[in-house]
Amino acid sequence: MSSEISTETAGATWTTTPAVSEHLDAQEVDGLQLWWRAANYLSVGQIYLMDNPLLREPLRPEHIKPRLLGHWGTTPGLNFIYAHLNRAIRARDLDMMYVIGPGHGGPGLVAAAWLEGTYSEVYPDVAQDYEGLRRLVTQFSFPGGIPSHVAPETPGSIHEGGELGYSLSHAYGAAFDNPDLIVSCVVGDGEAETGPLATSWHSNKFLDPVTDGAVLPILHLNGYKIANPTVLARIPDDELLGMLRGFGYEPYLVSGSEPEPMHHLFAATLDRCLDEIAAIQRRARRDGRMLRLRWPMIVLRTPKGWTGPATVDGKQVEGSWRSHQVPISDPRNDQAHLRQLESWMRSYEPAALFEPHGAPVQRIKDHNPSGRRRMSDNPHANGGLLLRTLRMPDFRQYAVRVDEPGATIGEATRVLGGFLRDVMRLNEDERNFRVFSPDENNSNRLNAILDATSRTWDAETEPGDDSLAPDGRVMEILSEHTCQGWLEGYLLTGRHGFFSCYEAFAHIVDSMVNQHAKWLKVTDQLAWRQPIASLNYLLTSHVWRQDHNGFSHQDPGFIDHVMNKKAEVVRVYLPPDANTLLSVADHCLRSRNYINVVVAGKQPAPQYLDMDAAIVHCTRGIGIWDWASSDQDGEPDVVMACAGDVPTMETLAAVDLLREHFPDLRIRVINVVDLMRLQDEREHPHGLSDAEFDSLFTRDRPVIFNYHGYPWLIHRLTYRRHNHDNIHARGYREEGTTTTPFDMCVLNQIDRFNLAIDVIDRVPRLGPRAAYAREALQTKLIEHRHYVSTRGEDMPEIRDWVWSAR
Amino acid sequence: MSSEISTETAGATWTTTPAVSEHLDAQEVDGLQLWWRAANYLSVGQIYLMDNPLLREPLRPEHIKPRLLGHWGTTPGLNFIYAHLNRAIRARDLDMMYVIGPGHGGPGLVAAAWLEGTYSEVYPDVAQDYEGLRRLVTQFSFPGGIPSHVAPETPGSIHEGGELGYSLSHAYGAAFDNPDLIVSCVVGDGEAETGPLATSWHSNKFLDPVTDGAVLPILHLNGYKIANPTVLARIPDDELLGMLRGFGYEPYLVSGSEPEPMHHLFAATLDRCLDEIAAIQRRARRDGRMLRLRWPMIVLRTPKGWTGPATVDGKQVEGSWRSHQVPISDPRNDQAHLRQLESWMRSYEPAALFEPHGAPVQRIKDHNPSGRRRMSDNPHANGGLLLRTLRMPDFRQYAVRVDEPGATIGEATRVLGGFLRDVMRLNEDERNFRVFSPDENNSNRLNAILDATSRTWDAETEPGDDSLAPDGRVMEILSEHTCQGWLEGYLLTGRHGFFSCYEAFAHIVDSMVNQHAKWLKVTDQLAWRQPIASLNYLLTSHVWRQDHNGFSHQDPGFIDHVMNKKAEVVRVYLPPDANTLLSVADHCLRSRNYINVVVAGKQPAPQYLDMDAAIVHCTRGIGIWDWASSDQDGEPDVVMACAGDVPTMETLAAVDLLREHFPDLRIRVINVVDLMRLQDEREHPHGLSDAEFDSLFTRDRPVIFNYHGYPWLIHRLTYRRHNHDNIHARGYREEGTTTTPFDMCVLNQIDRFNLAIDVIDRVPRLGPRAAYAREALQTKLIEHRHYVSTRGEDMPEIRDWVWSAR
Repeated sequence: MSSEISTETAGATWTTTPAVSEHLDAQEVDGLQLWWRAANYLSVGQIYLMDNPLLREPLRPEHIKPRLLGHWGTTPGLNFIYAHLNRAIRARDLDMMYVIGPGHGGPGLVAAAWLEGTYSEVYPDVAQDYEGLRRLVTQFSFPGGIPSHVAPETPGSIHEGGELGYSLSHAYGAAFDNPDLIVSCVVGDGEAETGPLATSWHSNKFLDPVTDGAVLPILHLNGYKIANPTVLARIPDDELLGMLRGFGYEPYLVSGSEPEPMHHLFAATLDRCLDEIAAIQRRARRDGRMLRLRWPMIVLRTPKGWTGPATVDGKQVEGSWRSHQVPISDPRNDQAHLRQLESWMRSYEPAALFEPHGAPVQRIKDHNPSGRRRMSDNPHANGGLLLRTLRMPDFRQYAVRVDEPGATIGEATRVLGGFLRDVMRLNEDERNFRVFSPDENNSNRLNAILDATSRTWDAETEPGDDSLAPDGRVMEILSEHTCQGWLEGYLLTGRHGFFSCYEAFAHIVDSMVNQHAKWLKVTDQLAWRQPIASLNYLLTSHVWRQDHNGFSHQDPGFIDHVMNKKAEVVRVYLPPDANTLLSVADHCLRSRNYINVVVAGKQPAPQYLDMDAAIVHCTRGIGIWDWASSDQDGEPDVVMACAGDVPTMETLAAVDLLREHFPDLRIRVINVVDLMRLQDEREHPHGLSDAEFDSLFTRDRPVIFNYHGYPWLIHRLTYRRHNHDNIHARGYREEGTTTTPFDMCVLNQIDRFNLAIDVIDRVPRLGPRAAYAREALQTKLIEHRHYVSTRGEDMPEIRDWVWSAR
Repeated sequence: MSSEISTETAGATWTTTPAVSEHLDAQEVDGLQLWWRAANYLSVGQIYLMDNPLLREPLRPEHIKPRLLGHWGTTPGLNFIYAHLNRAIRARDLDMMYVIGPGHGGPGLVAAAWLEGTYSEVYPDVAQDYEGLRRLVTQFSFPGGIPSHVAPETPGSIHEGGELGYSLSHAYGAAFDNPDLIVSCVVGDGEAETGPLATSWHSNKFLDPVTDGAVLPILHLNGYKIANPTVLARIPDDELLGMLRGFGYEPYLVSGSEPEPMHHLFAATLDRCLDEIAAIQRRARRDGRMLRLRWPMIVLRTPKGWTGPATVDGKQVEGSWRSHQVPISDPRNDQAHLRQLESWMRSYEPAALFEPHGAPVQRIKDHNPSGRRRMSDNPHANGGLLLRTLRMPDFRQYAVRVDEPGATIGEATRVLGGFLRDVMRLNEDERNFRVFSPDENNSNRLNAILDATSRTWDAETEPGDDSLAPDGRVMEILSEHTCQGWLEGYLLTGRHGFFSCYEAFAHIVDSMVNQHAKWLKVTDQLAWRQPIASLNYLLTSHVWRQDHNGFSHQDPGFIDHVMNKKAEVVRVYLPPDANTLLSVADHCLRSRNYINVVVAGKQPAPQYLDMDAAIVHCTRGIGIWDWASSDQDGEPDVVMACAGDVPTMETLAAVDLLREHFPDLRIRVINVVDLMRLQDEREHPHGLSDAEFDSLFTRDRPVIFNYHGYPWLIHRLTYRRHNHDNIHARGYREEGTTTTPFDMCVLNQIDRFNLAIDVIDRVPRLGPRAAYAREALQTKLIEHRHYVSTRGEDMPEIRDWVWSAR
């Protein structure tokens, strides 16, 4: 492969002049080359060695790890870029982060952090000496050591990269509201095939050159995935560059394999990009905003496994998919392979890279930026260091007035919108709070936020557009993936956020929330990682009120998905009305290192608790609603538990019906806001003790539990409890279509009539009235079906129901 | 908005000649315009009316549905395209399907199917007469009627569209191996922002012009989502067209709002695209394949809510996000709105569209294609009609020889690869079987398939590439979304497929599998929808053997996710070894209308059952392994149950250990292949009766259940069983990192030592040896930890363990 640089821009053409091949002076090339060689050497060492890290003696089998786990292919390219960014950081005193999509290039980033000294500062055992070096190579992909991918353990990283697709949205998330930051983001050509990455290129339409920092995407074409070529490496350059221009970038293509010319070419390109970024920002900040910016980016085409063995056993390795993981297999048992490994490692000339005692030579140290300019030590990559607590309005001020339970009608998320509007206002100067939504902010009735800010928008505008501005703080793109990626990047760099989403479509980011939960779990165990703000979801437009959008929009399973993650990380709240939602939201926005899932409806619905009662109820997370219960004089005949707004309403309506038929029935109504309270205290920090659980749910009375989601979750949470065998859980059983709200309840048997029948069927000794009441309730169900299927709406007695049993 | 057509191609420039504005004769324009008006009229009617469908009398409030649920905004554009496709189908006798991304344009597709007569053929109650028309409008978004989105109920559809992002991958999936089919696919500009859609443009690199059909993408820019402008409508045309060319298409932009010129422009453009498709196919099929095809596509820019009310209450509606759903609100109670609705509907001149008795006028009928050329009646859209049973090799021939349980070592998925290779070969002529994988086919050790076919690849090739060909049948792109979308499209059009995937990353398609499960559930209830082949997942590279990739690659929760869907649709299998995997795979490939999730390892592992035993075991789905049990002479002291390959191995190793310490202990070993057997027979058709369950698990003995995934699933499945309180489930507890395989087990306590300790702790009267044995096992755990953290591999006694207890 020859080395070349090319670009054809609409506005300007940059020709490759002879000057480019002399862009750097000899000393700069020398520094780059040494640093790069050292990083590559240490990367190979980490993959293979558990001793003899400086090759002081010939490699012997016992120096080799018994199991070789790591990825070489992408690593030398990542190291090359790192070396160049370091030169630029020093030359320009840049505040820069490095996000790499090919996260399995873990050894490269660990090597870089060690060369920069950061690694030894964070992990003193892995010092810049021989013993430290030995530990450095041994710990990699080793039990009790560090993972093979970039991970929370890696200083300077906010991006795990084990799962591909999110590098660019993370990078943009980091850049928002950090006007002095440049996030260099390597996109792998494998990763580039994923959906989330493919759409995240458009993030540039949501970046404000005045108030945000910059992202410098570097599309790294190394040509191969595990076993296949990559799509973007196998289309003509004009298609590739046209596509990237179509995404709104000005791409510069650097292609080659000869180190020295590549150093000149890449450095010249990088300098040009950084000049352009600086010019864009200068013009925008000095002269006002400009539409249709074209941010620069780099396409870097290098061989996969660059500088590695050209062939092994006669088969091509460098420049092939065969270099993806461990290019030379089993050197512990294959003597020829052992010799080839040694000669590969010696090709980097370790004696020229490290002092005899193990530290990097001074010329390498000189290549590092200093202090917090080191990308491995950039404080944005340990966002908790920079996190400032939000200024919070008093959520009590947004309370819905509730004189009597059930008498007031309110829209919970609309009320929340007022609160969020003022959170936005109070932190306007700090610029550390954004809300995210896939085109659903207003649909979810959080409109009030737009009184305090606009929607982020840097593309073209037209008359009639509603609340669009480059520095808006409501981020809406019809991509749950991009919203989630932006938010994660924003949180991981020490800011706050709030994600509202249709409940069913939260599943689109199942895998992303998995990875974030895993990240949080690991960071909890790393003392040097400071806590970050929680990832707050509001799931609304939920299963019970997607009667208009139908079956495809009805799925409450995101809760179940999240519940599989570690108890230390996960919280799930189901506030039954507006005041409890306010209390929960206030709590979530103040919390740290959690994933908070809040499920709340947006439709007009009865309000039960005044603010004082709401605070008490949310603080407990679970409680008996005395005003709805009739067991004050002793033990209940039945416990009616509920979690979620619609199930709560149906439970209360069922209580009404039962009271009518059985005035003496002792009913206890329990409402659950904090789902984790149901779990065992040994399983979750919020869990109730058995004694507490028994005092609420009794040890022997029937419990009719009306739950928002799939009912088996209630069994999973309570199977160890004494009274579990008496718990009868109702919930969504995957029945639905376009119908009325109440009919959705009936289809899944969480409705008042079915609940009342459940009670009749389970409470003994109800006497002769039981059969009569049961028949009357069944008749109601038939009436309902007839009414809705002829009239197309719910019966007035359903629509107009208000809590009346006293 | 004026009308214009433009394209600038690299190779050819097509100038707008005066001829374009006279592309159609007057009769053609008239037919198009009448058909379009009729479809629009019926769309509005469906959204609003429950009576008076022909406006025989002035609209009165009681003609209006009490709840208005539907989406107008996208519908007229979809109808416009449909009308034009019909003209082209008739003119060229095309075999064409229509896939629409904006699936909430449901009323449009229902209207089209009714106008074409198909609707009345499928649903005789909705005839082409006045009563049928009344039912047509009433049933839409009405309880007991049909959903508001395109749905399984819609004739001609394979694409629900409630969740956005999958139209184009579905369209390509339909086109594969259907060389005479053209799939017209409307991509909404909202949908285009999703990740899955954004990467699916690259599907054209996987389409063979010789053996596959064609996809004609129509990017519909109506400019707005629910509340925001769309990104692609707000970038300059040169960026948009450059991006689409970068994706490898030749885009033609048609833009305007005046019906008559738009008819000429769109028809001319469509004719040109169809000419180009025909030319590409002719050249490729006659002259051999050509690289770098540029398939044509259309960009259609029309106002949102086209032909609808320009303004309502003084606010712009047509051409604005306000037309997204129901443009005129509450005409039942607002008299002015009622009048405006009536005048809007009368603007289509219903008297000119329908006979007095309700049928469409002859000129509209004449515009329809006939019979199966009608897109609403295309048999590909009811794939079960075309489904041919696979020719299957005898899976017994691939059996691993197992003379004694545990003595043979085999790689389950590699064995499966041989079987799949021959499935591929036997169906080569029929061309109705493909396998799909996100770049993991070989990593998952299914390499043998590549002996029978190649990987699909129509982009550039280079020397050293491995098994790439345009007509290859192994489909690999690093996008789980695209793989899933292709496969769904392929299955829904009556073919067979197999999807292998890293277990953790199956979560990436959680939301897609949700939608497919919902589709299958509904089609089960539609007699006219013929059963299709099941969606078969092989989850491999699973949680227990992602020790090298680390924590990010460890997640067995896809099973839990799938388990929330309807029991009629979902099957989960955990074959413990190669022969059981073969038996399960054979069963899955023969099944219909299911989602089969098969979890199996790829690493060398002990083989337990010879083929005869494997078949018996898989047929039962659960069973006692007598050869591993020691309770033959009576009741067991303990039941050790296991599901999944690694948990099975650890259970057997624990039995070994226990036998050593307690030779008289009566252990019953139960292995579960079919997870649904655990469930109640009332909950799942595979469920065991209580008597069967009791006979296996006893009513009172301790059960140590070692499960592949999150352990609480076992409790969820068994909580109603008599012996549930004695079931102690082990499984993945979200602990992991880069470590050894056995250490993964230890971290989550599913290892042999912890299992044996579990038994000791739960079986009473083990005597004085219990304390000694417990101590010895604990010591082993400590030894293990020391060994792996110093040596980096598992102790030889672990690595070399073979089943020995007899």
